[in-house]
Amino acid sequence: MNEPDLKVIFLGGVGEIGKNMTALEFGEEIIVIDCGLAFPSSEMPGIDLVIPDASYLIANREKVKGIVLTHAHEDHIGALPYILKELNVPVYGTRMTMSLLEPKLREHKILENARLNTVKPKSVVHLGGGFKVEFISVTHSVAGSCALSITTPIGVVFHTGDFKIDHTPIDGVPTDLSRIAEIGNKGVLLLLGESTNVERKGSSMSEATVGSSLHKVFAEQSTRRIFVATFASNVHRIQQLLDLAQKFNRKVAFSGRSMLNVVEAATKIGELKYNNDLIVDIEKIGNHEDKHLLIITTGSQGEPMSALTRMACDEFTKVKIGYNDVIVISASPIPGNERLVYGVINKLYRLGARVIYESFANVHVSGHAYADELSLIHTLVKPKFFIPVHGEYRHLKKHAELAMKMGMPSSNIVLCDLGNVASVSKRAIRLGDNVTAGPILVDGIGVGDVGSAVIRDRKTLSEDGLVMVGVSVCSLSGTVQDIEILTKGFVYVKESEDLLTDSKDIVRSVFDKYDSKSDMNDFAQIKNQIRKDLKGYLYKRTHRNPMIIVMVLQERE
Amino acid sequence: MNEPDLKVIFLGGVGEIGKNMTALEFGEEIIVIDCGLAFPSSEMPGIDLVIPDASYLIANREKVKGIVLTHAHEDHIGALPYILKELNVPVYGTRMTMSLLEPKLREHKILENARLNTVKPKSVVHLGGGFKVEFISVTHSVAGSCALSITTPIGVVFHTGDFKIDHTPIDGVPTDLSRIAEIGNKGVLLLLGESTNVERKGSSMSEATVGSSLHKVFAEQSTRRIFVATFASNVHRIQQLLDLAQKFNRKVAFSGRSMLNVVEAATKIGELKYNNDLIVDIEKIGNHEDKHLLIITTGSQGEPMSALTRMACDEFTKVKIGYNDVIVISASPIPGNERLVYGVINKLYRLGARVIYESFANVHVSGHAYADELSLIHTLVKPKFFIPVHGEYRHLKKHAELAMKMGMPSSNIVLCDLGNVASVSKRAIRLGDNVTAGPILVDGIGVGDVGSAVIRDRKTLSEDGLVMVGVSVCSLSGTVQDIEILTKGFVYVKESEDLLTDSKDIVRSVFDKYDSKSDMNDFAQIKNQIRKDLKGYLYKRTHRNPMIIVMVLQERE
Repeated sequence: MNEPDLKVIFLGGVGEIGKNMTALEFGEEIIVIDCGLAFPSSEMPGIDLVIPDASYLIANREKVKGIVLTHAHEDHIGALPYILKELNVPVYGTRMTMSLLEPKLREHKILENARLNTVKPKSVVHLGGGFKVEFISVTHSVAGSCALSITTPIGVVFHTGDFKIDHTPIDGVPTDLSRIAEIGNKGVLLLLGESTNVERKGSSMSEATVGSSLHKVFAEQSTRRIFVATFASNVHRIQQLLDLAQKFNRKVAFSGRSMLNVVEAATKIGELKYNNDLIVDIEKIGNHEDKHLLIITTGSQGEPMSALTRMACDEFTKVKIGYNDVIVISASPIPGNERLVYGVINKLYRLGARVIYESFANVHVSGHAYADELSLIHTLVKPKFFIPVHGEYRHLKKHAELAMKMGMPSSNIVLCDLGNVASVSKRAIRLGDNVTAGPILVDGIGVGDVGSAVIRDRKTLSEDGLVMVGVSVCSLSGTVQDIEILTKGFVYVKESEDLLTDSKDIVRSVFDKYDSKSDMNDFAQIKNQIRKDLKGYLYKRTHRNPMIIVMVLQERE
Repeated sequence: MNEPDLKVIFLGGVGEIGKNMTALEFGEEIIVIDCGLAFPSSEMPGIDLVIPDASYLIANREKVKGIVLTHAHEDHIGALPYILKELNVPVYGTRMTMSLLEPKLREHKILENARLNTVKPKSVVHLGGGFKVEFISVTHSVAGSCALSITTPIGVVFHTGDFKIDHTPIDGVPTDLSRIAEIGNKGVLLLLGESTNVERKGSSMSEATVGSSLHKVFAEQSTRRIFVATFASNVHRIQQLLDLAQKFNRKVAFSGRSMLNVVEAATKIGELKYNNDLIVDIEKIGNHEDKHLLIITTGSQGEPMSALTRMACDEFTKVKIGYNDVIVISASPIPGNERLVYGVINKLYRLGARVIYESFANVHVSGHAYADELSLIHTLVKPKFFIPVHGEYRHLKKHAELAMKMGMPSSNIVLCDLGNVASVSKRAIRLGDNVTAGPILVDGIGVGDVGSAVIRDRKTLSEDGLVMVGVSVCSLSGTVQDIEILTKGFVYVKESEDLLTDSKDIVRSVFDKYDSKSDMNDFAQIKNQIRKDLKGYLYKRTHRNPMIIVMVLQERE
């Protein structure tokens, strides 16, 4: 019998393809790479977060040997609390990754039974009989990030994870190019390479350059209170800020729940290093002069409930922003967040503060490799086959073009989409069948109970509102007892009283047409007719299409 | 008695300040600059467009001497069909502006009575006894754009309009820097300067550079069908495309209603010049080989109903996109539209097409001045006072900083907001009282009947949906006859039947508590109690807060 193909199964990603969760399957064994969540798009109103559909893994639960994590970002570990409840397999990641994962599992009350394994870079984990996973240090915007070199029965799969090539990393741990070269020299069957910044030419800037820009801010703004908003998980950025505070004789207060959580976790494992007396509680900053304060806060994406947004709206009781404040937005707006971020910046300016952000100062660098860094990885890894991952379709396409320019035949490259399975043999790669995949929406404590019909209703409701018709009918005589019409999100009721009176007449006339008792039992037909007649009338009057809901109540005595 | 102040009244702008509509008032006379619409933000679900509140002008209708238009873009002329209905004053603009305005007024059936006056650049219009308006040519992304030099009884107000400084304009009409210098030399009291691109360093690129990039595309893609998506009003871009089509032996088809309208208007007045046999109907492109076709289309912003978006979704019957197609997106995403635009690009790639867009090729330039061009205007105009306009607050702030760096005292600069009135005398500028202003929302044919309460309801509905409770009650016995509960946008009903059963019990138990007949008349209290009890129960079960609507129907016989 022939050797089976290695299957690469894309189980996650909303907008970005091959993100969040990917599985490798060979024969009777599956390993899973990452288990992250996605953030809902504006097309998903009211949704809190989005997790990958794990039903393929659950249906094959006896095959799943473990989950390996590349790094600690939410889009790579955030779905574990949900998936582990269904599939409690061993989980492997570096110390930083595990220390951010643990509080999540604790919150979901599944930490005790979780099978967590902390691995060191360069170490190798055996999963099942067929898979060997080596963790390889890479630089990225969170400490402890790794690429994965996965030895399978038919060859080596190299997964870059999220990475950049930073030759002057803050923690002294660079992308391990020597090891990557060694692996490439031994032969790699398949490269899975991230594609986020493939459209950016050249190379990304080192995290250290942000330190220089921030140093300039501290030197120039010596009499003012300084705020810096950044991603909580960017411990290198936070380390640089702590060092600057020490140097410029400022106390540091942290603001925002996730900021406090990450700082606590990173401090505990030694990823953040500072003197304890550097830190003050945010409640007690009033005891210090402006020029002796640095506040590090969440909210760099303009998130409506974040500390920075509440400060900008003057709704944050602990801190009031004023003329002596400088706010540094040490982050880029994630695509789609531009309006939120600039809205916060405008509000801060209106409060009299100075605002320093990317358009004017190099106070942020990306954590993802640019085109030249991606090319370097292709050069070192020298894969036979290539699947671009982590990007919108346009990014995957550009990454494929980059590989082809470097000499790879197009038949050795496959572009995947959510639910796709790529089949890889020693000789060929091709797209195989699809498996169940797709976003599971989490709203409140409901996981997956909001589907496309519910989302569609929400969108309709938000566009033109609703008109609600209630009719009570006597079950004996069949006569209409009462008609009520309410609207929400449709028009001002005061200005539309005749609209409601006319609508009641329309409802009544539908009942008049169906006045025999036998018809009266067919409420579905009557309801449809009311909806149809009202829809026509309301569109004619307003050019709007509200959702029309009809409820018929019967007297049952 | 003292001379009155000149008042600058900011009546328009959503997000961008001092946009859409601004009035100058001196004593008993008012003139209005522009009358445009804004596009609704994501905070205004279901709204089609936004017009400025003209109630201050209507309350002072006898003072209003006329409306002067700087250029033909929607955000400068689009609200005229609404405002002229209330206030039919003379309107002044260049030929291009008027030829795009006329079809709008015709559609609203007010063209016949409109008092339209076409002016030439360099000409001067007298409005009332006190105002003299000179139209001065500027380059911008629509032909016939002008700055305004407005002589008032206390001095000259210079309004840049939307502009850039293009030394190689397609139509040979550059920004009239000589005349601007002359006006500056005679003395300008107040500059109103646009601020859109103040964050961009240096100078904007000439529209002609886009021609070079597009030339390269035509030369390289000689065997493929070419599509270019751009703004319909950018007649210079369209002229360059027509010239390239002529040169490369391609027929041109136009796609999209606004594209056809603008091309017709611009051709009629000679702003677009081409041989008639160059054009083919979009329905007939099947008669031509791919390599002999150029399709110029709307949809560069990923607008859901546009021709390009429908092509990308494979829902456009007239044109099917495939492997032999190249689509050039000759525009930047307007902030907030990024996801829509990239969504369309991803879909086009999936259909096999090549896509050329800004990240990779210089196929678009901005129509707005960069920082150095703004500085040049300050240098030439040499105003005593300055109000930055056309921008978010952050842009106005940066533009004020630019002026201060050039030597203007901060006391001579005022930052305004919607509804603000700036009072200007020969000696001082200050913020005065506010007037009624603010966005009027247009939804369907309703103008202003959707207010903040309706918008708030729509947002609540879109977040967690609604639960609708209907109860019929016997007016004689006071007993509950029937209870119905429906949900929309809340949860899958199938999975939540017990939720509905429990909810019915809760409704019933509220009525049980209020079982005396006197209480029964107090439906408001009962409804409130039902809402409160259900809200608590549903939040506990789902962590969601749907809108809860209670309707009580009475048997009235």
